[in-house]
Amino acid sequence: MSADPLVRRRVRIVGTGLIGASLGIALSRVGFQVSLDDPSPTAAALARDLGAGVLAADSAEVPQLVVVAAPPDVVAGVIAVELNRWPDAVVTDVASVKGAVLTALQDSGADLSRYVGSHPMAGREKSGAMAAQGDLFEGRSWVLAPGPDASAQAVDTVREMVEGAGSVVLIMTPQEHDAAVAAVSHVPQIAASLVASRLRDLPSGAIALSGQGIRDVTRIAASDPGMWTQILAFNAPAVRCVLESLAEELDAVLVALRHLESDPNEGSVGARAVLARAVADGNAGHALIPGKHGAAPTAYATVIVVVPDEPGALGRLLNDVGEAGVNMEDLHLEHEIGQMFGLAELSVLPGAVQPLITALSALGWPVHA
Amino acid sequence: MSADPLVRRRVRIVGTGLIGASLGIALSRVGFQVSLDDPSPTAAALARDLGAGVLAADSAEVPQLVVVAAPPDVVAGVIAVELNRWPDAVVTDVASVKGAVLTALQDSGADLSRYVGSHPMAGREKSGAMAAQGDLFEGRSWVLAPGPDASAQAVDTVREMVEGAGSVVLIMTPQEHDAAVAAVSHVPQIAASLVASRLRDLPSGAIALSGQGIRDVTRIAASDPGMWTQILAFNAPAVRCVLESLAEELDAVLVALRHLESDPNEGSVGARAVLARAVADGNAGHALIPGKHGAAPTAYATVIVVVPDEPGALGRLLNDVGEAGVNMEDLHLEHEIGQMFGLAELSVLPGAVQPLITALSALGWPVHA
Repeated sequence: MSADPLVRRRVRIVGTGLIGASLGIALSRVGFQVSLDDPSPTAAALARDLGAGVLAADSAEVPQLVVVAAPPDVVAGVIAVELNRWPDAVVTDVASVKGAVLTALQDSGADLSRYVGSHPMAGREKSGAMAAQGDLFEGRSWVLAPGPDASAQAVDTVREMVEGAGSVVLIMTPQEHDAAVAAVSHVPQIAASLVASRLRDLPSGAIALSGQGIRDVTRIAASDPGMWTQILAFNAPAVRCVLESLAEELDAVLVALRHLESDPNEGSVGARAVLARAVADGNAGHALIPGKHGAAPTAYATVIVVVPDEPGALGRLLNDVGEAGVNMEDLHLEHEIGQMFGLAELSVLPGAVQPLITALSALGWPVHA
Repeated sequence: MSADPLVRRRVRIVGTGLIGASLGIALSRVGFQVSLDDPSPTAAALARDLGAGVLAADSAEVPQLVVVAAPPDVVAGVIAVELNRWPDAVVTDVASVKGAVLTALQDSGADLSRYVGSHPMAGREKSGAMAAQGDLFEGRSWVLAPGPDASAQAVDTVREMVEGAGSVVLIMTPQEHDAAVAAVSHVPQIAASLVASRLRDLPSGAIALSGQGIRDVTRIAASDPGMWTQILAFNAPAVRCVLESLAEELDAVLVALRHLESDPNEGSVGARAVLARAVADGNAGHALIPGKHGAAPTAYATVIVVVPDEPGALGRLLNDVGEAGVNMEDLHLEHEIGQMFGLAELSVLPGAVQPLITALSALGWPVHA
């Protein structure tokens, strides 16, 4: 794009669902000149009304950058059309799988020096332009996954747009990206679904034993089957690879459990070691997940406070925490079955635990470290 | 126990770790006469100093109820000793697996009319008497799992103690209990560990793509390998059964992914259906998990508010929510990499969404439905 700040950057967005419309709002706010196109004129007009830009039909401008925000099963075709239609424009897309899109484009014979695939790590449980938010991308990671033919200038053009939307750029190969999302997103989704699925076999009373663990593990099991079928199908090679490694370890755990079943006290020492190793390896993997603000995970200490289940109670507590001068790193609110109060688990730096307990106790809060 | 409220109920607690000491504190507070025993005299004395009761060594009283709070690998032996030592007392235990304990006792020839196994659905990430809390059991479910020989009077005695500690009694057979905890606790633990374990194979940059999904799925992967090896080994038959069903579905997903790998656009229709079915079955299982206060899951609506990452900001927000007269059902605070503010996701009843948005917007909060 032009380096001259006086020339407004011209971006064309094809597909005005949640991501396309949110991006239009974000870029319009920081001075990009955005035109909007969608197979559904109603969807495009809705995005325009939300402040995402002008309709492409009303614009005579030639875009410098085209962002294709279409579903995975049509995205490669749309990218090829846009590359041919705008021979001087850079084209990117926002699909959550990158290798399959690039492979399809390579087969199409399109000019891939001007194509840079990308993937914003942002989204919502809702879809469609009505759910659009101008700050959807603020502070999120946004992967650029240029193929071997992409020009450096094309990468810079996409980078400028991504930073304009408020995101942090990460550069990876399409293969690295797909392997990463398989491990951090697609396989966790399958695992959550398979664990939740088992609950269907329980008598209804037994479900009452559900605690915070099963709730956390299965929260994403509420996701949309149609969307996930597409994502999993398009990232099949990378997902299969991670899932095979998981299935292999699962088989080893099953063998160990069968050994122990005959006699839990004796069992074979090897069987116990397999179980301990599986949990310990999980510890090690879990410890790699970065903490807040991209920093290495910090060992936060937790302070637990009993909070009455009434309007304003949690607010009063957190006000008191603020007045104690303590910065809360995380908050988890737990409700139990049949319990008319909540347990607020406040994560703070270890040095802040004692001052916080002293301050809250003085104000009458029931506090536990 | 005596129905005469003037006679203080006499409970002996064997094992004064987190559960035993917390129970002693809870029961002492409501007027039970508690004596404490532990293989470690130091642990017993610590529990006494925390208000959990008197040392058994200093008490001449004959207990009406013995609670064995010992680790799973020794619990059956301790129960048998206590049944023999106190021929008029009821004995219960708090181990998280019930079938294996009962089987071991049946082999021992003890008087099982006076034994009722139980399992409080309460715990902490910390262990030991130092972590004890008198309110640990308040409002939690506590399963009683009487075997076929347990007398109705023995069940009532244990029930009275459980209700004294503030818990809600659930009655199940040992087999029902073990199948339930396999599905809602033990298999989720294994799944979380196996998913987290896969992250060890990723290059360090790729971990940066971790979002809230992988964090939730793997939170319990940080659990202690030694404790979990014991639990899984003792519940091997029930865990194996649930895990085999999971492994079977996982194999079907893998077969589908291999089919789709050759051509994501074509694939076989059956392969896509397998993936969609896995996610849809997960939806159905997830929907069974009860909501807050033991009610059927309610469809809450969420309101998202951008909160600056500074002391007191979340407190101010929640105070404002309280003043708007809205009762928050749940709160989830999300931080993203490199982001200096948080997104607070407030769950409220659907009818409260518009009033809440209006009230918060008027006070200058950036709000999204």
